[in-house]
Amino acid sequence: MTHEAGIPLGIRFKLLSDTPQDSAAQVVNNVVVGDYRDLDTLRAFARGCDVVTFDHEHVPTEHLRALQADGVVVRPGPDALVHAQDKGVMRAKLDAIGIPCPRHRIVSDPADVAAFAAEGEGFPVVLKTVRGGYDGKGVWVVNSAEEAADPFKAGVPVLAEEKVDFVRELAANVVRSPHGQAVAYPVVESRQVNGVCDTVIAPAPDLEEHLALQATEMALTIAKELDVVGHLAVELFQTRDGRILVNELAMRPHNSGHWSMDGAVTSQFANHLRAVLDLPLGDPRPRAKWTVMVNVLGGDFPDMYPAYLHCMARDPQLKIHMYGKDVKPGRKVGHVNTYGDDLDDVLERARHAAGYLRGTITE
Amino acid sequence: MTHEAGIPLGIRFKLLSDTPQDSAAQVVNNVVVGDYRDLDTLRAFARGCDVVTFDHEHVPTEHLRALQADGVVVRPGPDALVHAQDKGVMRAKLDAIGIPCPRHRIVSDPADVAAFAAEGEGFPVVLKTVRGGYDGKGVWVVNSAEEAADPFKAGVPVLAEEKVDFVRELAANVVRSPHGQAVAYPVVESRQVNGVCDTVIAPAPDLEEHLALQATEMALTIAKELDVVGHLAVELFQTRDGRILVNELAMRPHNSGHWSMDGAVTSQFANHLRAVLDLPLGDPRPRAKWTVMVNVLGGDFPDMYPAYLHCMARDPQLKIHMYGKDVKPGRKVGHVNTYGDDLDDVLERARHAAGYLRGTITE
Repeated sequence: MTHEAGIPLGIRFKLLSDTPQDSAAQVVNNVVVGDYRDLDTLRAFARGCDVVTFDHEHVPTEHLRALQADGVVVRPGPDALVHAQDKGVMRAKLDAIGIPCPRHRIVSDPADVAAFAAEGEGFPVVLKTVRGGYDGKGVWVVNSAEEAADPFKAGVPVLAEEKVDFVRELAANVVRSPHGQAVAYPVVESRQVNGVCDTVIAPAPDLEEHLALQATEMALTIAKELDVVGHLAVELFQTRDGRILVNELAMRPHNSGHWSMDGAVTSQFANHLRAVLDLPLGDPRPRAKWTVMVNVLGGDFPDMYPAYLHCMARDPQLKIHMYGKDVKPGRKVGHVNTYGDDLDDVLERARHAAGYLRGTITE
Repeated sequence: MTHEAGIPLGIRFKLLSDTPQDSAAQVVNNVVVGDYRDLDTLRAFARGCDVVTFDHEHVPTEHLRALQADGVVVRPGPDALVHAQDKGVMRAKLDAIGIPCPRHRIVSDPADVAAFAAEGEGFPVVLKTVRGGYDGKGVWVVNSAEEAADPFKAGVPVLAEEKVDFVRELAANVVRSPHGQAVAYPVVESRQVNGVCDTVIAPAPDLEEHLALQATEMALTIAKELDVVGHLAVELFQTRDGRILVNELAMRPHNSGHWSMDGAVTSQFANHLRAVLDLPLGDPRPRAKWTVMVNVLGGDFPDMYPAYLHCMARDPQLKIHMYGKDVKPGRKVGHVNTYGDDLDDVLERARHAAGYLRGTITE
């Protein structure tokens, strides 16, 4: 999707890909297959690149520091990116700059989890390994010290957080360039199913203006204070008592911004590229009153083609984005965007298409 | 641009390119460099393709017939495409199906040109080689038999046409799929400078509804009668006396449809792909009241980068599409799209950006 956004801008890619079958490797012209955890591979790859950027946060921080020391332009830089790689570092920094977060601290063992619970609202408590989590992986909700053994098995520090009493999840997406220009997309509502993003509504319906403003300001503050270059997605909780708390950070185009591909003047992918190349940023404003994104998950039928035909025929306005991945149950294999003036209609169309493609809706 | 549109649809390309530097070859994953005039090259290339389509009309008709005989799916097929390759064949067919054209006939020599002129309104007369013309090449406007020698030198049949007294040029873009589904984009106004498309306004301002309908019906009729599969651009004259006449046909995404990339629900590139793959077609309706496309021509400055920065900073809503071509004076190296409610503003923004990129506007 980043390559797609780069074509009209005249931006040419070299891609470091795990396998030749990766989504991006199917469409980019210049592909190097290699392991992003190997510094020599990274060094050889980075040679000749004007700038190196990412579509995930898993490249080891120390390797990025080594590249930077070699003179490679890495954006976002490792000192920013570490906050999206390590939840412990992230929470400490957000505390330091006064950004509201769920109550939290690093815990050392199950007994310490019980102590953390006792310091606040009690169980349930959310436990997260500080590194390596993604789409609900590396996250546990535990109701007792006895249930809290698993997170400590990986040998990675564990962060305990209060289980926030939220009415919904929001996301504030902003993009910042090296000389400090920043743009903010409208705050969106993000609905998760089984810990995986399912639906995003842009803008978040019925969000009070002061909360939207607060969420946007928080994201812009984080981008500035962490010296983020590129896209920053700030996943947020809107609490029952009317507060906005930061859940997670991502420093790359993010699922909560996929709606922007068809719903905003400038997509998150285009603005991420413009930012990391220090080009002036594009207008992030919505093009429609409502835009809805629903993820397409793999279902029980590996061949989505008949469903794909059906969805295009049913809704000629539907925007389908398929990733070229093999279909496996529960795997994100694409998303659909719909837009229009009537939120109920826009939501129904997106849900129907995604459900039909997955096979959970058959008519 | 076709690859860009194919990415979200999950469509993967194999590209036959003249050189590794061609625009498409810079961005497509699977590139074969070879000569499209060589049948063996075409045969080897087509192996394994679900469908073969084009971004120009120059592949020899007989080679396409040979591929078809081999069982290759060629869309549009050679029997349709020949009407976009040979202006003599095109005029004869349009006459046969009752589509209004400028007065015309094949002429044999300069004396015959004088006879053609005398049969109608006299000089000037437009002369075109029936094959090989493009962007004003292969077209002459002559004021006498003496001026009419050049067109006959190529040894290609020459078509004479009345010089139409037109108030403006229009284009009707339609897309048709193999089983006959068709969609029509709004009729646009196309402004040429020195025989090259300069500006396209969608929809054509102040076009009377019956003329818009007539132009659209003509394009749909041509698509059906010629059995076009894919995108068909019908370039039209709107005459001073209120008629619509066909100027040229193109059977591929066309410059007069570039506005649709940012201005329509479904771009001409996406719909061309959907058509040639026999997928249901997407909604061709405009997303904005007005969309304007202006071509970016190469100017005297080979390095467009500073201008590119300036244009992005000046107008964050500007949609730039660069083709990755070396800048040569007068060469189409990209286009810009703008859209909005106020036509004057939309036109000014597009013209300014294109002029600034070319170097003809410096403030």
